[in-house]
Amino acid sequence: MAKGQQKATVTFLGGVGEIGKNMTAIECGNDIVIVDCGVAFGDEASPGIDAIIPDVTYIKQNMKKLRGILLTHGHEDHIGAIPYYAELFKDTPIYGTSLTIGLLKRKLEKNAKKCKLNVVSAGDTVTLGDMKAEFIKVVHSMGGACALAITTAAGTVFVTGDFKMDNTPIDGKKTDVQRIAEIGAKGVLLMLGESTNVERKGSSTSEKVVGQSLENIFLANTQKRLIIACFASSNYRVQQILTLAHKYNRKVVLAGKSMKAIVEVASSCGELHVPKGVIVDGVGKLLPSETLVLATGSQGEPLSALKKMSKGEFNKINVGPDDLVVLSSCPIPGNEKSVYDVINDLFRKGADVIYDSMNDIHVSGHAYEEELKLMLSLVHPQFFMPVHGEYRHQYKHAEIAKAIGVCSKNIVIPNLGESYGVTSKGIRKHCNVSAGNIYVDGVVLEDGQSVVNDRRSLAEYGMLIVLAAVNLESGKVVGDVDIVARGFNLTDDVEKSIKNAVFEGIGNADMDKANIDEYARNVKKSVRKLFYRDRQFPIIIPVIVKD
Amino acid sequence: MAKGQQKATVTFLGGVGEIGKNMTAIECGNDIVIVDCGVAFGDEASPGIDAIIPDVTYIKQNMKKLRGILLTHGHEDHIGAIPYYAELFKDTPIYGTSLTIGLLKRKLEKNAKKCKLNVVSAGDTVTLGDMKAEFIKVVHSMGGACALAITTAAGTVFVTGDFKMDNTPIDGKKTDVQRIAEIGAKGVLLMLGESTNVERKGSSTSEKVVGQSLENIFLANTQKRLIIACFASSNYRVQQILTLAHKYNRKVVLAGKSMKAIVEVASSCGELHVPKGVIVDGVGKLLPSETLVLATGSQGEPLSALKKMSKGEFNKINVGPDDLVVLSSCPIPGNEKSVYDVINDLFRKGADVIYDSMNDIHVSGHAYEEELKLMLSLVHPQFFMPVHGEYRHQYKHAEIAKAIGVCSKNIVIPNLGESYGVTSKGIRKHCNVSAGNIYVDGVVLEDGQSVVNDRRSLAEYGMLIVLAAVNLESGKVVGDVDIVARGFNLTDDVEKSIKNAVFEGIGNADMDKANIDEYARNVKKSVRKLFYRDRQFPIIIPVIVKD
Repeated sequence: MAKGQQKATVTFLGGVGEIGKNMTAIECGNDIVIVDCGVAFGDEASPGIDAIIPDVTYIKQNMKKLRGILLTHGHEDHIGAIPYYAELFKDTPIYGTSLTIGLLKRKLEKNAKKCKLNVVSAGDTVTLGDMKAEFIKVVHSMGGACALAITTAAGTVFVTGDFKMDNTPIDGKKTDVQRIAEIGAKGVLLMLGESTNVERKGSSTSEKVVGQSLENIFLANTQKRLIIACFASSNYRVQQILTLAHKYNRKVVLAGKSMKAIVEVASSCGELHVPKGVIVDGVGKLLPSETLVLATGSQGEPLSALKKMSKGEFNKINVGPDDLVVLSSCPIPGNEKSVYDVINDLFRKGADVIYDSMNDIHVSGHAYEEELKLMLSLVHPQFFMPVHGEYRHQYKHAEIAKAIGVCSKNIVIPNLGESYGVTSKGIRKHCNVSAGNIYVDGVVLEDGQSVVNDRRSLAEYGMLIVLAAVNLESGKVVGDVDIVARGFNLTDDVEKSIKNAVFEGIGNADMDKANIDEYARNVKKSVRKLFYRDRQFPIIIPVIVKD
Repeated sequence: MAKGQQKATVTFLGGVGEIGKNMTAIECGNDIVIVDCGVAFGDEASPGIDAIIPDVTYIKQNMKKLRGILLTHGHEDHIGAIPYYAELFKDTPIYGTSLTIGLLKRKLEKNAKKCKLNVVSAGDTVTLGDMKAEFIKVVHSMGGACALAITTAAGTVFVTGDFKMDNTPIDGKKTDVQRIAEIGAKGVLLMLGESTNVERKGSSTSEKVVGQSLENIFLANTQKRLIIACFASSNYRVQQILTLAHKYNRKVVLAGKSMKAIVEVASSCGELHVPKGVIVDGVGKLLPSETLVLATGSQGEPLSALKKMSKGEFNKINVGPDDLVVLSSCPIPGNEKSVYDVINDLFRKGADVIYDSMNDIHVSGHAYEEELKLMLSLVHPQFFMPVHGEYRHQYKHAEIAKAIGVCSKNIVIPNLGESYGVTSKGIRKHCNVSAGNIYVDGVVLEDGQSVVNDRRSLAEYGMLIVLAAVNLESGKVVGDVDIVARGFNLTDDVEKSIKNAVFEGIGNADMDKANIDEYARNVKKSVRKLFYRDRQFPIIIPVIVKD
């Protein structure tokens, strides 16, 4: 078969609202590779849900073709679902750079031994059946991030992963624009490009700028204790903070389980250099001027160190007027309220707090508009799919690709669960696959969607349990009607009305076919009617027992 | 009694997270006046709640002293609670400018006749017992906004209300800086200053700038149908849109109930001038180039016109590639997801959408840092309380007041439910009053807090009803155990474990004191234990019946 007639297939299996982030399958001939396997997190639309993981039905149906899992970098939304599928993937080689695999090992805990984990370096190429995948260095908010050039019989599929074009990165390792240009020059069939920051004009700021701002804060606050919160996984940020602490003779106390764990992983794989003696176990007798607390909780997470400090519940660190707290972060959309709650509480405790991005204390790890244009120019793919973003981001990224010169009919905005076939002749959707969200609440839920729907109804309207004993012979209620309400305002008057409605419902039952179910149906109907006029829709659960 | 020894008392009765906004009581001698009486809206912390209104227990206890209610302007968070307390306040004179009272009348519906509504103009002074209150023109995002100078025997209390310093307002009516300066020169005892935009540097942009941006959009999109969404209550914004539509020969279709109603109220009281013939009933046979749809829904509200259009559910207006949608707004914190959902769906329908503030299509109605400084300089109060904002805003506003020269010990950051006494000698908190949130869900809830707490638990963990019949003689379960789950993942295995736990719980009951309650307690305990290890905490409701 001529190369032009071979088909590469791209299937989007994971990502809530933002596809291509959590899991994508790339397929050609008899081989499938998975790119990333991450989690999304619940929001008010999925109350109480710990995590949302990709639906792997399609992979299960094609396990024989699965050649490997490629991880672009070690963030939760790219690796976090693997532990849930450790059994399924136990014979599938998993590839990532040392920090990525280090973080994955930590997540897998004792299952790590079961999995086939392979550490690669940027520049390495791995063979996956008839495909090959090259890992290419890109800068992101954490180390070890890579783009992927996946060579198939149909042509090369280039996946940017999360990236930015920082030309002065902390560790000197830039996005490998030369290699990307070379791959682009050889010809790329399809590019999947991340779209997170497409709405931001110009180019992102270098991580180095944050270091300068933080140094100014160190210089202006020599007498205060510094408490800095950032993502534990942002090893470049952590690096700059440790280096500054060392320079200005402050000892660093790590606060928060993941901060301690990730510092250990990152330093053991060479992505973090901890100056000797700078980290200490606790604040002990250190003066405020000698102390820096490096804490988790920059997103106001409920169990994080900073949240506990703001509530006065953190062991041994009491926040007060001697403290300057720096949130070296920006609230992720949806987290604003949690973040500002923490900031309000820290101010209430008398601490000073620096938290807005106007102070250059945070930069994004994602490319802005001009960097996205540069990536498209370097790769100049025949076909383009904007991914990692809501529809509006994908739309704008598609507009940019057109402006760069990608032919309009060669651009597709994919949705979750869609599968596209690509040849040098064209791109076309050929099917939908099962890609609904799988909810995790302590355990993986079997029918998560209905659980989530019920929770939303319960939250919105509350519920009523109506308990009555009925004599099946006479069709009459025996004894009293009991009512249990949760999340519902049960006044004496309302209780009386409900009881009447129960009697009415039971009275309305057709005696000929009267059984427990018939009574329950009638009671539910009758009680529901009662609240309809006030536009209240509590969940009504009739419990009718035989007398 | 010398003036210096008279005491003015300020009590903060309403405002969720942001005090002083929804309701404040100002008291001196035998007189109380209320400033504003508004609602807050529920969020994920209060699921299903329509509105949160101030607790008026303190007012009820002091009804004899109540002389009037002063309304600074007509936004929901300042007038929206009056309909819930229409009966309580039926003998209390209510004062506001014509637009404010017009909007209140609309909300009161048939209760409007019952209330003593009084229209005042900026510059007017009303007498309230021994107090006097002067209404002073300020610019805000809606017309008819006023600051208040309340003269008491203890001195003048100045309430800024919501304001900005727009020197080129649409209707030419500027914030009355000259009158404010005059009042300040005579001496102000206490100022309550709004803090909403204290984090924004410099000064806010004039509403006129939005008109210029919108005109550019009209000029660049002559062939498209324009759909513009903004707050119906933003009469200056609506004015500019109507004027532009008239100038560029477009007919305006109003979409959304509140848009129609508020345009009617605002034009009937002279705060909106509708060019003759510009508003039409429906799109009819108008070409896209001749049409402008002015819609509600700029915050992605579930029942708004724009939301329905984005879902293809709006009668007679089908959004498609001929449309340019402009969201002349900025998402209110917490609404981001709803707003972006609408934008994503509009893009999916093929429309172009302009939505970010980078295009100068929206300006804020609240003063920025430099305007707040100017207000403080004009009023130069002896005592200062930053209000209308979260704690971090109040804190920063307090810092600004210090920088302006207000003595640090004369600045107090008040909390909801606190009551402060002020004399020329000092300011001091003298008590707390009942000021918990009153929840409205269709009706005003009697014990709203526990209803809301239960809803949050139900949403987070779901619930289980466990039904068993017990023979009190033998202490044994009779027949089968039934389990009803809502918002909870009930697998066969889990069901079996629950049933075992029920048997165990009943078996563990102390036979000597065994009764229905004792069995229920034991069953609950036993079932709860089952889920504890997976960190799941469903609400468990045991229903134990006598066999």
